Amino acid sequence: MDMTNNGNLVAFRPDIKVMDCTLRDGGLVNDFFFADEFVKDLYKANVKAGVDYMEFGYKASKDIFDVKDFGKWKFCDEEHIRAIVGDNNTELKISVMADVGRTDYKRDILERKDSVIDLIRTACYIHQIPAAIEMAEDAKAKGYETSINIMAVSKVSDDELNSGLKLIAESGGIDTIYLVDSFGSFYPEQIERLADKYVSIARASGKTVGIHAHNNQQLAFANTISAMRRGVSLLDATVSGMGRGAGNCFMESLLGFLKNPKYNLVPVMDLVEQHILKMKEDGVIWGYDIPYLLTGIFNSHPRSAIKFLKDGRTDYAKLQQELMDND
Amino acid sequence: MDMTNNGNLVAFRPDIKVMDCTLRDGGLVNDFFFADEFVKDLYKANVKAGVDYMEFGYKASKDIFDVKDFGKWKFCDEEHIRAIVGDNNTELKISVMADVGRTDYKRDILERKDSVIDLIRTACYIHQIPAAIEMAEDAKAKGYETSINIMAVSKVSDDELNSGLKLIAESGGIDTIYLVDSFGSFYPEQIERLADKYVSIARASGKTVGIHAHNNQQLAFANTISAMRRGVSLLDATVSGMGRGAGNCFMESLLGFLKNPKYNLVPVMDLVEQHILKMKEDGVIWGYDIPYLLTGIFNSHPRSAIKFLKDGRTDYAKLQQELMDND
Repeated sequence: MDMTNNGNLVAFRPDIKVMDCTLRDGGLVNDFFFADEFVKDLYKANVKAGVDYMEFGYKASKDIFDVKDFGKWKFCDEEHIRAIVGDNNTELKISVMADVGRTDYKRDILERKDSVIDLIRTACYIHQIPAAIEMAEDAKAKGYETSINIMAVSKVSDDELNSGLKLIAESGGIDTIYLVDSFGSFYPEQIERLADKYVSIARASGKTVGIHAHNNQQLAFANTISAMRRGVSLLDATVSGMGRGAGNCFMESLLGFLKNPKYNLVPVMDLVEQHILKMKEDGVIWGYDIPYLLTGIFNSHPRSAIKFLKDGRTDYAKLQQELMDND
Repeated sequence: MDMTNNGNLVAFRPDIKVMDCTLRDGGLVNDFFFADEFVKDLYKANVKAGVDYMEFGYKASKDIFDVKDFGKWKFCDEEHIRAIVGDNNTELKISVMADVGRTDYKRDILERKDSVIDLIRTACYIHQIPAAIEMAEDAKAKGYETSINIMAVSKVSDDELNSGLKLIAESGGIDTIYLVDSFGSFYPEQIERLADKYVSIARASGKTVGIHAHNNQQLAFANTISAMRRGVSLLDATVSGMGRGAGNCFMESLLGFLKNPKYNLVPVMDLVEQHILKMKEDGVIWGYDIPYLLTGIFNSHPRSAIKFLKDGRTDYAKLQQELMDND
């Protein structure tokens, strides 16, 4: 693996791309009920900020999820994206996420020529990799850029992960493999080792690697830049870290760090001033808190922490005990 | 430098020591007006948690600072510490900080045999190192453990820093040299390079190195464990990161990370539940926010960010412009 071109603190790497997941991961906080004005302003801010990709949400199947229970970005109908972006005559590319087992991809992913979407990201657990490859190859055949995002790898053995990555590497239908720290449980040195593995396998098969980090231990930004230094090139972030539980890598931190002059922090700060402060005042809750630290340390899904906070509990030591009992 | 014994994620290094600075750095948020009950409970929590040192505050000169303007932990009179700890018959050691130019150390630092204090930490800017050495040598002669904490090294050239570290290395009166990220401006790779420098110089002269990080970019914990991996052994943290501006490395994260079974996270979480939540409700403010991110990125003192927030401003882009103009 060529580690000589992984960037330093002054130069920039032209392969770096920034992905805004505010609507998609943030939608897990508010069931995707974003005001249209927010979505429009976020789109404009991303264009101005030089962000490379904006993920609008999920392509969930309406046979599985009731449209009454969720805002429109759970489903990302073509017409709804177009109502925001028109024909998207900008440098910003548009992404949606398709979950294995929750997407009717044959019906709901259109031919690329009929869509403003550029990138289909397929999310899966390790045992769903064959299904994810099938979905990604379908999207590739329709003309899209594609990625496979393997979730919850902190629960996966090295052997399983190696086998899964090998399967993905052998497919010609996938452009990017995503390293995902679903539970915010990894420390930078673990991320570095994983990034080395992913980058080595991806580069050998002409693919790139992305990183999606969670902030349970306040390490999302640190892990993102650690991965970047090891050759990872697609970097996920959200405005003010908006995302499930402890949330994600802050777009503000990431844009403040990257040295490519195409990136501009100001439009994102303006968006925080105009929308995010109010959203937080209105009681939309995400971000670091002790319960998420604990689920991170115990390598657990954040659902127990989300419930703990929703129930107004503060007996952290008891939650730790419960997490130990579940181990 | 021996890098073979810098620890990994399963083993632990017996040289690691944890320093609680909640009263000292947290005192910069509330002018050191802590309730006695809080201080007592913090002391008990640190003892139970296996924390190695607790810093009670500053040894500020009452000739320079008016005792009416500050709580008692600005001055750390012997009797006030003893009212909390008695003779401190515990494993926890007691620290105070003495600032160059703000401490009447000849008068106010007692002989070690007459004090419950174990460690005197002398804080200085780069040009004050000769004065700091004089103070540290006085404390050493009186019988204390000593450290010199060089502040604001992000503003210092390599040459100046090398000269300053050389002076400290040549003194027999200093046990520990502290790497301090005063403005929260360093990224982990910079901390790693600095830690290598400090550790190399310190080990050659039989000293140890400590790290004190700030959370402007949400990197305080990441930088602390990065430094630890490079051989730094004294790790500063505060409960819930309480400290000036963006605050410090969270004690909760650090204790959750360290593998030595002597450390116990539960007493610290209990303290958060019993005191910190209420303190935050009562409007004591610290922690990550965009203005601190900006002073971190621009390598500036947090005072402009503190004022910005105190003035109720949210025009972040304007603050960025002001920081650029000041550069």
